[in-house]
Amino acid sequence: MNDTAPIAAPDGSVLRVHAGRPDSPIAVEVTRGGMVESVHRVIAAVVDADGKVVSSWGDADRLVYGRSAIKPIQALPVLESGAADAYGLDESEVTLCCASHSGEPMHVERVLAWLERLGLTADDLECGPQMPSYEPAARALIQAGVAPTRAHNNCSGKHSGMLTTARHLGEPTRGYSGDDHPVQKRLKAVMAEMSGCDLSGVPTGYDGCGIPVFGVPLKGLATAMAQFADPSRLAAGRRAAAERIVAAAAKNPLLIAGTDRFNSVLLTETGTSCLLKSGAEGVFAAAATGKGLGICLKVDDGTGRAAQVAIGAILGHIGVLDADAQRRLANALTPPIRNWAGRLVGVARPAPDLAF
Amino acid sequence: MNDTAPIAAPDGSVLRVHAGRPDSPIAVEVTRGGMVESVHRVIAAVVDADGKVVSSWGDADRLVYGRSAIKPIQALPVLESGAADAYGLDESEVTLCCASHSGEPMHVERVLAWLERLGLTADDLECGPQMPSYEPAARALIQAGVAPTRAHNNCSGKHSGMLTTARHLGEPTRGYSGDDHPVQKRLKAVMAEMSGCDLSGVPTGYDGCGIPVFGVPLKGLATAMAQFADPSRLAAGRRAAAERIVAAAAKNPLLIAGTDRFNSVLLTETGTSCLLKSGAEGVFAAAATGKGLGICLKVDDGTGRAAQVAIGAILGHIGVLDADAQRRLANALTPPIRNWAGRLVGVARPAPDLAF
Repeated sequence: MNDTAPIAAPDGSVLRVHAGRPDSPIAVEVTRGGMVESVHRVIAAVVDADGKVVSSWGDADRLVYGRSAIKPIQALPVLESGAADAYGLDESEVTLCCASHSGEPMHVERVLAWLERLGLTADDLECGPQMPSYEPAARALIQAGVAPTRAHNNCSGKHSGMLTTARHLGEPTRGYSGDDHPVQKRLKAVMAEMSGCDLSGVPTGYDGCGIPVFGVPLKGLATAMAQFADPSRLAAGRRAAAERIVAAAAKNPLLIAGTDRFNSVLLTETGTSCLLKSGAEGVFAAAATGKGLGICLKVDDGTGRAAQVAIGAILGHIGVLDADAQRRLANALTPPIRNWAGRLVGVARPAPDLAF
Repeated sequence: MNDTAPIAAPDGSVLRVHAGRPDSPIAVEVTRGGMVESVHRVIAAVVDADGKVVSSWGDADRLVYGRSAIKPIQALPVLESGAADAYGLDESEVTLCCASHSGEPMHVERVLAWLERLGLTADDLECGPQMPSYEPAARALIQAGVAPTRAHNNCSGKHSGMLTTARHLGEPTRGYSGDDHPVQKRLKAVMAEMSGCDLSGVPTGYDGCGIPVFGVPLKGLATAMAQFADPSRLAAGRRAAAERIVAAAAKNPLLIAGTDRFNSVLLTETGTSCLLKSGAEGVFAAAATGKGLGICLKVDDGTGRAAQVAIGAILGHIGVLDADAQRRLANALTPPIRNWAGRLVGVARPAPDLAF
């Protein structure tokens, strides 16, 4: 445990880059019976690979921690460094580099086998242990009297990717999650290149899994995703890496999240037409390959249920999900709210005055 | 499962009583490193027992479902009907009438023993089964291969109270959670009386535990809580009931929520000086007995972490929690955010420009 203050400025202040005010024009509402009970406010940007904002709702320059929504970007060095080929990563492992998984056996067993090929174990992962979010997997561990390991952490695939790159480049594997380790410096440089943003001096913090996070303008995060949608501006090695990531994830939608998870349900529908990734605190990022567009959104209050509804609405708006797809996915895009007895009591959905 | 549409208006529309806009002036911010990552907006009202708004932040007339924050109000009929005395309810059981408990043995065993005195069982509870939120209790059930019952539902005490009243008054116990059952009609009447609000025609829905919920103006919910803080305007029987509820909860803070729960931590501190109760979707209600004031707040987005920070800030503002108490309770009032490895990465706290 490290209890040094996480606050950056010497006076203990933190940067206030937003206020959750009406400059967050997208509204997701949660109804109960005859009333809207709760409302979430969202900002979003749709950007092309030149960084041109095609559509935006709210301040596209607001700084946002991309959290796990940027895992596809963080996976690029694993491939472009040659590490993935040197260690024979298949498409399932490439997908796990981008995953926030539910700790199901399909995720954990793949991570453990992969670490073994690196000559490493779950103890070399520097994310903390985490109980699987997939309830049957958590139940199985508890019934077996087994504690969850770091391989069960939803980020264990990303961390295995970082270890693979460090191994391949002859960097120390111990301490790979630290700010000054080449792995993390490389990730910051890749984000700066992909987003087209100068990240020197931006606010920083630590992610749930321990690695540094950087405040990036929302449109920069969308720009980075647009490079996956239209990789024509990327150098050959990075372009190949981006294309492999899109193809791998499309073939392994259950590995990017898990059984019955929103991200997996949507990716199963979109396939190679749209790479999608959720992040903590209400972030969602997507690369609409057929349209050459990157999308990023942030829910002011950090709630995942609103990020899901909002990304679905935007994908509908820009035509990634057509009317048929929206009907098929209705339970995911406008999720019913049920009580403990299973009774339908409300719904989460885009507000009808959503500013599209 | 009942999948009839939960929407009240014939055209399928629902009432939009708020928009999560700056008319919700209280801001709770969640930091990560050098940046505010997420912001919650909150409305609140502090009201005296005459219904006079002493302080408010945002529209005190906004309709709010009180959810579990109104359980102390829902407990009144159990006492004033004579049911509590007829069935020998002690202070722990009176507290459980008001509880959203964690499903710990101290909660569940008391509920089961109480139901047995009524000649009933957990199967007579009409709330659904719910896994205990207290992790060791959930773990114990899973390890024993036992499914959670309706007695584990966080509302099982409230439902046992409803059954007690129905039993005592010779009403059917079956169907006590239905809109037209005398138990629910009585609860609506009590809420109308305590809040001073006409509840005919207000939006309605169903709570997580299946009983009807009513949209009540925020200041009406605060007015109802103010009657606990200053019961001098209540008829003798209701006054005695309100006083017994305040006294019972103060002696049983762990029963109102559970081990390490915010509501229990605060109630342990405030004792008889302030009855406190949380509700789903970001509601918190309190009765500051020493000050004769009722308080109710609603987080626009429905997030509990913000409701906790906001009620703490308001209790500090009105002097229920003095500087010493605020220091002692710092981990509850401004909770640290830790990552999976236990590292301190941020904090949830009132925004410095909170409009007090």
